[in-house]
Amino acid sequence: MNSMYQQLMQLPLFQGVSSDRITALVEKLPFHFLKFRNGEQIFAAGDQCTHVRFIVSGQVRLETQFDNLRVSLLQTLTTPHVLAAEYLFGRETSYPYTAVADGPCGILQLRKSDYVTMLGSDKVFLFNILNYLSSGSQRNCSSFVAIKENSVMDRLAMLMDTLVITGATDVVLRFKQKDLCYLLGTQRTTLISSLDKLVDEEIIDYDSNELRILDHLKLAEYINK
Amino acid sequence: MNSMYQQLMQLPLFQGVSSDRITALVEKLPFHFLKFRNGEQIFAAGDQCTHVRFIVSGQVRLETQFDNLRVSLLQTLTTPHVLAAEYLFGRETSYPYTAVADGPCGILQLRKSDYVTMLGSDKVFLFNILNYLSSGSQRNCSSFVAIKENSVMDRLAMLMDTLVITGATDVVLRFKQKDLCYLLGTQRTTLISSLDKLVDEEIIDYDSNELRILDHLKLAEYINK
Repeated sequence: MNSMYQQLMQLPLFQGVSSDRITALVEKLPFHFLKFRNGEQIFAAGDQCTHVRFIVSGQVRLETQFDNLRVSLLQTLTTPHVLAAEYLFGRETSYPYTAVADGPCGILQLRKSDYVTMLGSDKVFLFNILNYLSSGSQRNCSSFVAIKENSVMDRLAMLMDTLVITGATDVVLRFKQKDLCYLLGTQRTTLISSLDKLVDEEIIDYDSNELRILDHLKLAEYINK
Repeated sequence: MNSMYQQLMQLPLFQGVSSDRITALVEKLPFHFLKFRNGEQIFAAGDQCTHVRFIVSGQVRLETQFDNLRVSLLQTLTTPHVLAAEYLFGRETSYPYTAVADGPCGILQLRKSDYVTMLGSDKVFLFNILNYLSSGSQRNCSSFVAIKENSVMDRLAMLMDTLVITGATDVVLRFKQKDLCYLLGTQRTTLISSLDKLVDEEIIDYDSNELRILDHLKLAEYINK
């Protein structure tokens, strides 16, 4: 079995499928392997999500721009990850963020209609996507129901729990300070004392326009303890 | 076509499927129609979600108890609605709320494994569940990204947007006032002035231990404008 098949079998949504099945699919369906240079855009926020896209080599930087505030969230995904599979179907079928190659990077893509054919070819593919989407759908209900005090720290934790993809690294919030106050629903003095508390606990680091998550799990404990 | 088939065809997850297909499925798969008396429990929070369950007559009262606060959310669903289909798969496969018959009520249920067979029998079933789960998964990202100021009103709106099921009626939050302050991350005086503002706008009504949503769409505008 060559490395392409091994790569495919490690991808979320492909896990647990036999190599025979993968081989048959690769022969039958038009999988495309695309190469991107450092800094090249893979897709922009608002582009239609017409293909299921996987990172098969290198890494991708994602940027989510907030609608009403001068705040954006940056995060990095590496292989093996799928990109925004929850936007293939449902109410919103355009990408919520921009994806740019962070160094040379390889993307495997398959048209949505071919992916649907794939789902019909093996129950494992079907279970994988049902589990992926269901977990995404459950995620927020559980963090709201677990609220203990909805402090500024809790709000930051919930925001990150919602917008940061499981397994993402190098998570940075870029902001104008006034807008970060609006985002977290607080005044400047409370903002600073809350952030300083998180710095003391080695959960974040920040300066005048960037906040970096150092320990995502410890931040999540604010809402999941 | 008798009324049972008509009822089935109106159910979410069944919509758009031909009556011939429905007839064939009802003959092949063990659909169970269950009757519940007023006040009878259909399932409890924490029960395993082993069946896909639809309301085919009457209505059901759902109660979500918060984990760490003396707060619970009550809402009513009527026919045609599916109950918690996002908990059939994914990380969490137990019900997040208790469901009780509100007056006499009829539930149609199908085992999870038979539902998976159904998904394989027609692409329309597959698209229905993929759309349902994807929309659920997208829901919260969009409300976080749309934050304008994260006021107490915004927080109440986000909470309701996350936990209230589309189409639910008679939505009530039952609370101890101190715990409602924690839930919304505020002090008593700000809580009262925020709630009074929502009362003036005819969005909610409240007393010392209950808050009733009068206009869900207008409340949602706090986060979706």
